[in-house]
Amino acid sequence: MTGTSSGRLIGVGVGPGDPELLTLKAVRALGAADVVAYFAKLGNGSHARAIAHAHFRTGIEEMPLFYPVTTEMPKDEAPYRTAITAFYDASAASVAAHLDAGRTVAVLSEGDPLFYGSYMHLHVRLADRYPTQVIAGVTGMSGCWSQAGAPIAQGDDVLSVLPGTLPEAELARRLGEADAAVIMKVGRNLPKIRRALEASGRLDRALYVERGTMTGSLCERLATRGEAPAPYFAIVLVPGWRERA
Amino acid sequence: MTGTSSGRLIGVGVGPGDPELLTLKAVRALGAADVVAYFAKLGNGSHARAIAHAHFRTGIEEMPLFYPVTTEMPKDEAPYRTAITAFYDASAASVAAHLDAGRTVAVLSEGDPLFYGSYMHLHVRLADRYPTQVIAGVTGMSGCWSQAGAPIAQGDDVLSVLPGTLPEAELARRLGEADAAVIMKVGRNLPKIRRALEASGRLDRALYVERGTMTGSLCERLATRGEAPAPYFAIVLVPGWRERA
Ligand SMILES: C[S@@+](CC[C@H](N)C(=O)[O-])C[C@H]1O[C@@H](n2cnc3c(N)ncnc32)[C@H](O)[C@@H]1O
Ligand SMILES: C[S@@+](CC[C@H](N)C(=O)[O-])C[C@H]1O[C@@H](n2cnc3c(N)ncnc32)[C@H](O)[C@@H]1O
Repeated sequence: MTGTSSGRLIGVGVGPGDPELLTLKAVRALGAADVVAYFAKLGNGSHARAIAHAHFRTGIEEMPLFYPVTTEMPKDEAPYRTAITAFYDASAASVAAHLDAGRTVAVLSEGDPLFYGSYMHLHVRLADRYPTQVIAGVTGMSGCWSQAGAPIAQGDDVLSVLPGTLPEAELARRLGEADAAVIMKVGRNLPKIRRALEASGRLDRALYVERGTMTGSLCERLATRGEAPAPYFAIVLVPGWRERA
Repeated sequence: MTGTSSGRLIGVGVGPGDPELLTLKAVRALGAADVVAYFAKLGNGSHARAIAHAHFRTGIEEMPLFYPVTTEMPKDEAPYRTAITAFYDASAASVAAHLDAGRTVAVLSEGDPLFYGSYMHLHVRLADRYPTQVIAGVTGMSGCWSQAGAPIAQGDDVLSVLPGTLPEAELARRLGEADAAVIMKVGRNLPKIRRALEASGRLDRALYVERGTMTGSLCERLATRGEAPAPYFAIVLVPGWRERA
């Protein structure tokens, strides 16, 4: 902490998409914060802002944090990593300036802030220097299996959460060892994910959910879904609980 | 469905414990339901009811579903399974009677309903016969890592959710293969869990969270925690994201 007059950092989970899946605690935080920050892509707006803006305090100061344009850079190479690290450093510094001035800054996060969320990049840079609170949110995966009405795990089930960015063979191996699985970051990884599900004997049980709990959402068996490309907000669920009581 | 006059089943996630972590959607459902059902242990009350009861519609009909007393029975043997299956069948029939009479029945679930929750036993018995909706909730694990301020997974991390009821060797093997892990159902499994974490080289990173987001909650490193027994609401987190950007 920089002193008793410093502001407070609040990571606010806004849930999977349906604005009614905000928690009472998130609503209260947004009604009281001085500044609301959110990551956004230039030209695309912020999805988290769209979910939560109805609850912004009148007069709240908005602070969009625009990702640098890195479309030309391969994500696993040094130039990309350098650019993105510099961006998170600069974003944290901008937030810190508000905190030093005694303001409460709410940082929006789709789903839950500490579950594969961008908020984490600010958290690790600021949480040991400023009073910080994280307001848990409903994750995207919970929104998706609830909408699908698919019991995901029960009893002794092991549930694996797998990023669709993993290599195909690793995906297949890990799918084969889990009772239940959630595959995140589907998008253009879908063809690879489908092959890994096939190889591990899980394709028959797999559900594909797009834009879960949002307008225009859909849910279908992956096996019978066509080859259409998947958007960013897409997930694959492999429900467990084979031995029902 | 039994006809157009049939009622509606709603699985309502009430979140990890803090009553403010209820969603707006859950609050609205509880303010409109005819009947609210919840599982409870005789003499113990219902934890989910305690979290949510401030939002019950005045005049709502409460329907506690008391677990049969099975303390003498080993959980993996036939007499226990028979008793518990009969209990879920009878509970589903009681709920169905309300649905047949055209009433909306909200069934409370701690955390998220379809994530290791008892609501699932009603869902699989009723969801194909009655209009059913599941309202996702903040899971216990999200509440716990948020309270601990511990980023659980990022980027290509694989997150494994492991029931503490698994055999020690299996726990150790699965811990050794995951980037991040959550161990649920800790309670009296804690000594075994500690040994499995030690064996897999994860004990140093492990956090123990008790009654996350509830009154009297605590969070500490498992390695330096004493041998005191753990209660039902306890979880172990092994945060991932070792390679921070
Ligand atoms: C970077 S992660 C962020 C996760 C978020 N913090 C959470 O708690 O769910 C983004 C991925 O989550 C999944 N996801 C999140 N919300 C979703 C939704 N409403 N429908 C489908 N997938 C979703 C998609 O796979 C997407 O690529
Ligand atoms: C039968 S599972 C139910 C999970 C619930 N449906 C959810 O979404 O979190 C119960 C286990 O979840 C964990 N748990 C749930 N809420 C918790 C809390 N507030 N603090 C610590 N552990 C919790 C404990 O390990 C407990 O044994």
